[in-house]
Order: sequence, then structure tokens, then C-alpha cells
Amino acid sequence: LPFPAMRIAVTPGEPAGVGPDLILALAAEDWDAELIVVADPELLTTRAALLKRSVELDMFKPASAPEAHRNGRLKVLPVALETSAYPGTLNPSNGRYVLETLHTAARGCVQKQFSAMVTGPVHKSVINDAGVPFSGHTEFLAELTGGDPVMLLTTDNLRVALATTHLPLADVSEAITPTRLQRVIRVLDHDLRKRFNLPSPRISVCGLNPHAGEGGHLGREEIEIISPTLEHLRGEGIDLRGPLPADTLFTPQNLEHTDAVLAMYHDQGLPVLKYVGFGAAVNVTLGLPIIRTSVDHGTALELAGTGKANAGSLRAAIKLAIRLAEASVRADPIENPNSSVA
Amino acid sequence: LPFPAMRIAVTPGEPAGVGPDLILALAAEDWDAELIVVADPELLTTRAALLKRSVELDMFKPASAPEAHRNGRLKVLPVALETSAYPGTLNPSNGRYVLETLHTAARGCVQKQFSAMVTGPVHKSVINDAGVPFSGHTEFLAELTGGDPVMLLTTDNLRVALATTHLPLADVSEAITPTRLQRVIRVLDHDLRKRFNLPSPRISVCGLNPHAGEGGHLGREEIEIISPTLEHLRGEGIDLRGPLPADTLFTPQNLEHTDAVLAMYHDQGLPVLKYVGFGAAVNVTLGLPIIRTSVDHGTALELAGTGKANAGSLRAAIKLAIRLAEASVRADPIENPNSSVA
Repeated sequence: LPFPAMRIAVTPGEPAGVGPDLILALAAEDWDAELIVVADPELLTTRAALLKRSVELDMFKPASAPEAHRNGRLKVLPVALETSAYPGTLNPSNGRYVLETLHTAARGCVQKQFSAMVTGPVHKSVINDAGVPFSGHTEFLAELTGGDPVMLLTTDNLRVALATTHLPLADVSEAITPTRLQRVIRVLDHDLRKRFNLPSPRISVCGLNPHAGEGGHLGREEIEIISPTLEHLRGEGIDLRGPLPADTLFTPQNLEHTDAVLAMYHDQGLPVLKYVGFGAAVNVTLGLPIIRTSVDHGTALELAGTGKANAGSLRAAIKLAIRLAEASVRADPIENPNSSVA
Repeated sequence: LPFPAMRIAVTPGEPAGVGPDLILALAAEDWDAELIVVADPELLTTRAALLKRSVELDMFKPASAPEAHRNGRLKVLPVALETSAYPGTLNPSNGRYVLETLHTAARGCVQKQFSAMVTGPVHKSVINDAGVPFSGHTEFLAELTGGDPVMLLTTDNLRVALATTHLPLADVSEAITPTRLQRVIRVLDHDLRKRFNLPSPRISVCGLNPHAGEGGHLGREEIEIISPTLEHLRGEGIDLRGPLPADTLFTPQNLEHTDAVLAMYHDQGLPVLKYVGFGAAVNVTLGLPIIRTSVDHGTALELAGTGKANAGSLRAAIKLAIRLAEASVRADPIENPNSSVA
């Protein structure tokens, strides 16, 4: 390794879900980075006993030098549960606990104590039931750290960013404005350069309508909004193709020449991404001052405590967080917490 | 073979596009069925010369017994061009010719002269420029033959039907009505049984909104329209799952238990289908009294006459037409033209 181990904070998320199971499974592997789990230590030992996993917990000491994770030991930054968590049983009493783990990890990233944070699955409604308005990790982290979030999903060979995310389909067309597209595309281009170390990222943009509107016969947003906005941004030096029909853009020969696809909405881009990702897709939040990756799945309450949950997405999310953190050191040594040690 | 060669009509479509090239490429292979190309013979010989392919044309004689296609010979049912066709150069003068080939093939199917028809790519606007209103093969054939068309795209291991097809995205939500869903799902279930010989087809239905509306937080069409309609149709004995989030439905483990996916709109279902299909997806029109399959691509004018066009989709479309025709004989011998010979 060209520099010391990155320090990566991991929040297992909902304590009744599979998050704790997954991080315990990954703690039984070796990693090139230091993993710091932000969670209740008793939750981890109880869940480990249930899963018949042996793991030794070490309390995280910020002043220590980072060291690569070794299987069987796990560094913990403790946050206390309000009440014991039972696998599969949601309890709003622990809603604030979940948020506190996110707060702690994000603060650590902002303060450069951690190089990145990786989030497990949370259950939105149980947090809201706890009386705390919460519309998702991304919005929460944007408010906490500042920044202009853009959702990017990645697999080994495909990256898909979304111009709109969790909107009813009927509201999508109105949300595709020049302002939004400019913001999203600038963030995407910037972060592909800065976070992914791609010196000249090539972005392919989907049309909004089938066949990208077919010359106006199937909708006019391409002609009136998308094409002029892309033209404007090309003038800023951004390498943009499109708007292209989504059903031919996502074919292997077209994707060869693309570093990221920008889909106009959730179900235009994510079915193919998740098909390709095969249970190991990663959600990355661009546009934040910190590096954050996440699993792409939910809490899978019915699998919690059974040992049957698939750690593929969390493994991929941690791996990507490490790579992004390392790329960030290379690209921009001054801004990185580990650079002074390098 | 358990019964004699099926007789399959093929319309190469736009004469300036790759259609003629593709059928000439496939004529150089052996087939288990008889292929009858409905086209101008001179167009075929001229294009064959340009492509340096040797092919002998035999005029189709309806009274003859069907015989399996052998490479190097091609049966033609002649329809005359209005004017010579040049690869890559659209000419509205030939718009009526294109329609006449479709008419001829469809009539032959209705009259049980052919077991199925397979269509190459056409250019909608050049037909309209010829002064003939034409909004697509499917609509044209539905009007000609009667029936209630449903678009199904298939690959070797995935079938996706569409509840809405070529609509601007902003109009999709309003088009998802109980009436439409009932019609589409009944046709889909019926044709999976009858055409595909699936005795108890399992259909998975996508939600309209991201996360299938997430319990009403991201749209209410699932609660108000889709779920009640599915419940109603389950009462008729149709095996329906859903509405399910499109981004998790299209994962290999979910698709294992599904014979067909019903997507609510074009770009929800086709990007993943075409990614999986890798240039060999086939478009099947369900709900017609005849069997019709089609390529899933356009006229690729720039490739016409170059020999570089990929015949994968037309090959797959012909293969599927043969299988559907054979299945139709097995399931329903009385309705099939070849059954009397069997």
C-alpha cells in the first residue's frame, strides 16, 4: 500500500435488521483498511452469539494510528441502544439510536477522523415513528454536512446517476428542469473527476421519454429542456452524449464508451443496474463534502439473526469507500486526514 | 421433427435499411422451417450482389408442400418496389411498398397460408411522408387482423410485457387504469398459455412508482389501481405477483420464479431486457389472431449494404416464430394451417 490504512466508519443501521449480521460477517475477513463500527457493543456481542460467530471488540481510540482490519477483531465506536434490539422486531424506541450512529460517523468524517463512512440499511418509518422527521440517509447527511447530493449507483462495470430519485412517476416530468439537470450533471462530472480519479469522464444521458422522445413525437422534454441544457454544459467542457433512448443506451456496446449514465428517474436506471450488480451494487452519495457509500438493499428483517443474509452489497460498499478514500488522497493530498502520515 | 416444416413469412421492411441485408445473411443458413420473404426480388438480387452473397430466388408457390429452408436458396413472394431502393437513402415513393409487404404477409397468416410472420425494421416517418398514416407495425396489424395487441419483448431467459408502450412519460400515470391493466394481463396470461404452451404462467407485475410506491409515500397508483386490479384478476385464476419494485424484481433470484414480467411503461422494462438480450431480443405481438414476431431494432440506414449489420435479432425473431407456430400446433391443432398435414 502506498499509504497507511484508511479509517472507514461503518453504521450497521437498523438494529433489528440484517445490518449487524452483515458487519459481523465482514469482520471475519481481512481488510486493507481499518473498519470502525459505530454501534452498540452489546448489540454486536449478542448478535454474534446468536450467529455463533466469535469476534473480539476493541474500543476505538481516535489517537491511535490506523491499522488494517484483521479477522476476528472489530473496532467499535460505541453508541448505546435505548432498549435491547431483537432481530426482526422493529422498535421505535431505537429510532434515535440509529440517527445518533449516523451523526457520529458523519461528524467523524467532517472532522477528518474518518476517511469515509459506509451505511447499512435503515427503516425510515420506524425513525419517523420515533418522532424524528427522516426522509433518508442522503437528505440527512446533506443537511448535516452541507452539499448538494446526487445519487449514484455502481457495480464493477456500470455507474448510474439519477436526475430525480424518490418521486412519484407522475411528478418526474415537471422535475426535469434546466436548473436541476445543470446541478446534477456538474456534481456528477466534478465527483467523477475528484472522487473516481477519472480525468475526463464521459457521461451518457438518457432521454426522459421512450426513444428519447422520437423527435418530439413521444414528448418534447428532450427538445425543450434536456438537449439545450446538455449543449450549454458541453460549453463548460463536460463530455456529454445524449439524450439517448434508455433501452439502447444500456447495451454493452454503448456502455463501453461511457463512464457514467445519467438516468432521468429511478426505475429508468436502477432495474438494469441492479440486474448487472447481482446483489453487490453500491449506492454512493456524490456532492457531499464527505465520502459516503451504502448498501443498495433494505433491512431484510426476516433474515436478521438467521445467518442467511448476503453481505455482498456491504462488502462492495466498504471496498468502494476504501478506493474512493485512496483516490481522494492521491488527487488531493491536503484535504485528506491520512495525508500527513504519507 | 414431429410435424412438417412451418411456413414463415418474413417482411424485410424498409428497403433502404438493413432488413434486406439481414434476411440475405439468414438465407445463407439452414432452417427447420420454410422461409418466404415478402419483398421485391430485384431488391434482393441487387443487395445480394452488393454484399457479394450468392443466393438463388425461387418464387413461392402456395400450392406446394412446405419444405425446410436450405442455405443459398430463398423463396420469395414478390411485391414490386415503386422505385429502386438505394441503401441508406430513404424514399417516400416506397412507403406504400413497405405497407403492401405487411398486408401480404398478414393476409397470408389470416388465411392460414403462413404459420407466422416476422417483420424487419420499418421507418415510420417515411411511410407517413408517403401520405399513409402509420403509427407502427403493431397498430397496423391489429387494425388489419382484429385483436387487442400487447407488446412482449423476449430473450432466451426473460419476457417483459408492457402495460403502456409509446407514450410520453408524463402521460403514463393516467394511462394506468383498471380497464387497461385487465385487458393487458388477460391477453398476456392467455397468450402465455396458448402461444408459449405454459400451462400455469406466473406473471410478476411492476409497480408504477419507485419502490412500488413505498406504501403510498411515493405515489398512490399501486394502492388505488394496481393492487385492486391484480386482486380481481387473481379471482379469475391468473397467477400474479406484485405490484413489486422494478429495481428488485429484475434481479436473477426473483426472475427465477417468473414466466413474464409486466412493466408499467417502456423504459421501466426494456433497458434491462435489451441489456440481457445483447442484440438478440425479439418483439412479439400478443393478442392478435396471428403469430407475429419482430426485430427489436431500427433500420440502421448507415449499415445498409455494408455487410456489418448484426442479424442476431432477426435470427432470434424467426426462431421464436417457428417455436410459437409449433407450440400452437401442439396446443390447438385445429386452428393451425399445417395440422391437416400432420
